[in-house]
Amino acid sequence: MIPALLSDRPAHRVRRRWPAWVLLALSSLALLAWADDSSGGPSRQPIESPIESPIAIAIHGGAGTISRDAMTVEREARIRAALTEAARAGHAVLTEGGAALDAVTAAITVLEDAPEFNAGRGAVLTSEGRVEMDASLMTGHDLQAGAVASVRGIRHPILAARAVLDDSPHVMLTGRGAESWARDAGLEFMDEDWFVTPFRAEQLERARSREAAVGHAAPWYSTVGAVALDAHGNLAAGTSTGGMTNKRFGRVGDSPIIGAGTYADNASCAVSATGHGEFFIRHVVAYRICAGMALGGQTLTDSAEAVVNGVLVEAGGDGGVIAIDGAGRIAMPFNTPGMYRARIDTDGTLHVAIYGDE
Amino acid sequence: MIPALLSDRPAHRVRRRWPAWVLLALSSLALLAWADDSSGGPSRQPIESPIESPIAIAIHGGAGTISRDAMTVEREARIRAALTEAARAGHAVLTEGGAALDAVTAAITVLEDAPEFNAGRGAVLTSEGRVEMDASLMTGHDLQAGAVASVRGIRHPILAARAVLDDSPHVMLTGRGAESWARDAGLEFMDEDWFVTPFRAEQLERARSREAAVGHAAPWYSTVGAVALDAHGNLAAGTSTGGMTNKRFGRVGDSPIIGAGTYADNASCAVSATGHGEFFIRHVVAYRICAGMALGGQTLTDSAEAVVNGVLVEAGGDGGVIAIDGAGRIAMPFNTPGMYRARIDTDGTLHVAIYGDE
Repeated sequence: MIPALLSDRPAHRVRRRWPAWVLLALSSLALLAWADDSSGGPSRQPIESPIESPIAIAIHGGAGTISRDAMTVEREARIRAALTEAARAGHAVLTEGGAALDAVTAAITVLEDAPEFNAGRGAVLTSEGRVEMDASLMTGHDLQAGAVASVRGIRHPILAARAVLDDSPHVMLTGRGAESWARDAGLEFMDEDWFVTPFRAEQLERARSREAAVGHAAPWYSTVGAVALDAHGNLAAGTSTGGMTNKRFGRVGDSPIIGAGTYADNASCAVSATGHGEFFIRHVVAYRICAGMALGGQTLTDSAEAVVNGVLVEAGGDGGVIAIDGAGRIAMPFNTPGMYRARIDTDGTLHVAIYGDE
Repeated sequence: MIPALLSDRPAHRVRRRWPAWVLLALSSLALLAWADDSSGGPSRQPIESPIESPIAIAIHGGAGTISRDAMTVEREARIRAALTEAARAGHAVLTEGGAALDAVTAAITVLEDAPEFNAGRGAVLTSEGRVEMDASLMTGHDLQAGAVASVRGIRHPILAARAVLDDSPHVMLTGRGAESWARDAGLEFMDEDWFVTPFRAEQLERARSREAAVGHAAPWYSTVGAVALDAHGNLAAGTSTGGMTNKRFGRVGDSPIIGAGTYADNASCAVSATGHGEFFIRHVVAYRICAGMALGGQTLTDSAEAVVNGVLVEAGGDGGVIAIDGAGRIAMPFNTPGMYRARIDTDGTLHVAIYGDE
């Protein structure tokens, strides 16, 4: 409608007969109608025809001390395949005109099911040998958010965060209360053993003996997350994790904390973080990157770099983030040797990477 | 040492004999020594002699629909007495050269014991008629933080947050894990009935019938908090709450969330919030006020006003904050009819107030 008014030849013919203020009023009305049409609405509502707006998605499977030496060919292939599948699942939602929130949710459910990552099945084990998970989601057009912390048995914690976002007046639910909310929402529950992989059981054993030796366990940061820009111009971000190996005392990291592990605001950007959670909470990492743009006038790349390779490095906080702005520009800085990551840019190209030098 | 070098007469005499660069080097050394001396150290360490630096403290006992009609003379007198006692308890720590963190902790323990406020004894009741509390603390000179969520039986939840800050590698512990940490730290536990006041039991009954009638309970925001500037130039903030009356599903509000309910950074300010927690989480209220100063170049008052009476009002989020900067300037904006509050300014004057027009 707008292209017709502003650039097609019939519009030029009209311009010669009508005064400028009439044209201005008509264009304003058309713009208003278009803005109203594209401003969101229910997040699952598909648009009728493809819009020529940029779409893009980025995902991560965690940052950490990932080195080629410690990786088998088979494991690396499985990880790259899962990252590819997750990015494509989210991108498919976007190409159909779906909402960024749905794209992020779709990508994260793939990563939660992949046993290689520390989220859903294959999550790390607590000191009691159990799987206890956190997840959060946020939408940039209305700042709605949902989070669950310390939940057990829910196959897809990100869907529990989604149920809190969609149906609850609250932002954050914990423990059995959150599980009860997920059960009422009809979410799938699995036996606790289903979540436990041999890899994580061995990791817990190693952590226990290391902790016995040096007094604390080495953390492992393969939290998963996704950020997306949809054809409506809306941003969303989500994060899901099993936390730290051998964790005790109901420790909650940054992943379910809106502002620390996850943030989205159409006015700036959408961010999902992975790393040493305590540092990410104290430095409000996800929101801080958005604030660098909104309040500090920085670009996405500059703001994300300043926080991850400036503030966090200075503080000693290991990790990384994925971030996307309203034009579909993506930044994925990390200060660890590697970060499992993938992106499909606005031109449709897929990039999958693990190490720092690729 | 610095006044002697820069303004006393002997210094002027020296100036005539020594070249300017020698004096400059000497002053720099003196400044460095002084800065090193005043830069913090262990938080409980008293200073040997009073420093001529500003000290100030502000506290709140919650914001909400407080009106003179709904208040008895006796209740109002008890509330003003408790606010006065809490502000003085915190200020006494500061006048003795104690740390802002200790002042904030001292003020909040007084408010937790006062049955009028929604924290510690007298906290609101969950849908099961129990008391379930959250608290958090943060120091501005090193960005250390501690938080507990959904704890029961701990007389002073703020001391549990303090134990997490002082002794744990983590920032946030929840539920039984947090209680176990508090027990190991030797904190006082009380029978669950000790926390329940007749006022809160009646409030729960009213909320239950109101919820049955209109589908949701009216929230009540008498969370408590404190912010302080100590003679070392350090800031701290803390918040403690029982959450919302009739809450279910392990709902966590903003009070234990670093960035939302509590934040402190010597580079900008210290903030404790009270209000409709979901809005305070989504807008990262406490950190956002600090970011307005650090990234946006605003004054404390302008930044706090912009968030509380701009961002939050636009979003429909009721509540208020107390905030203090490195010069001891205090802002206490709220967008509700009243906020229980008190302050002792840098000139030592005490102000206690409840309603919006005083």
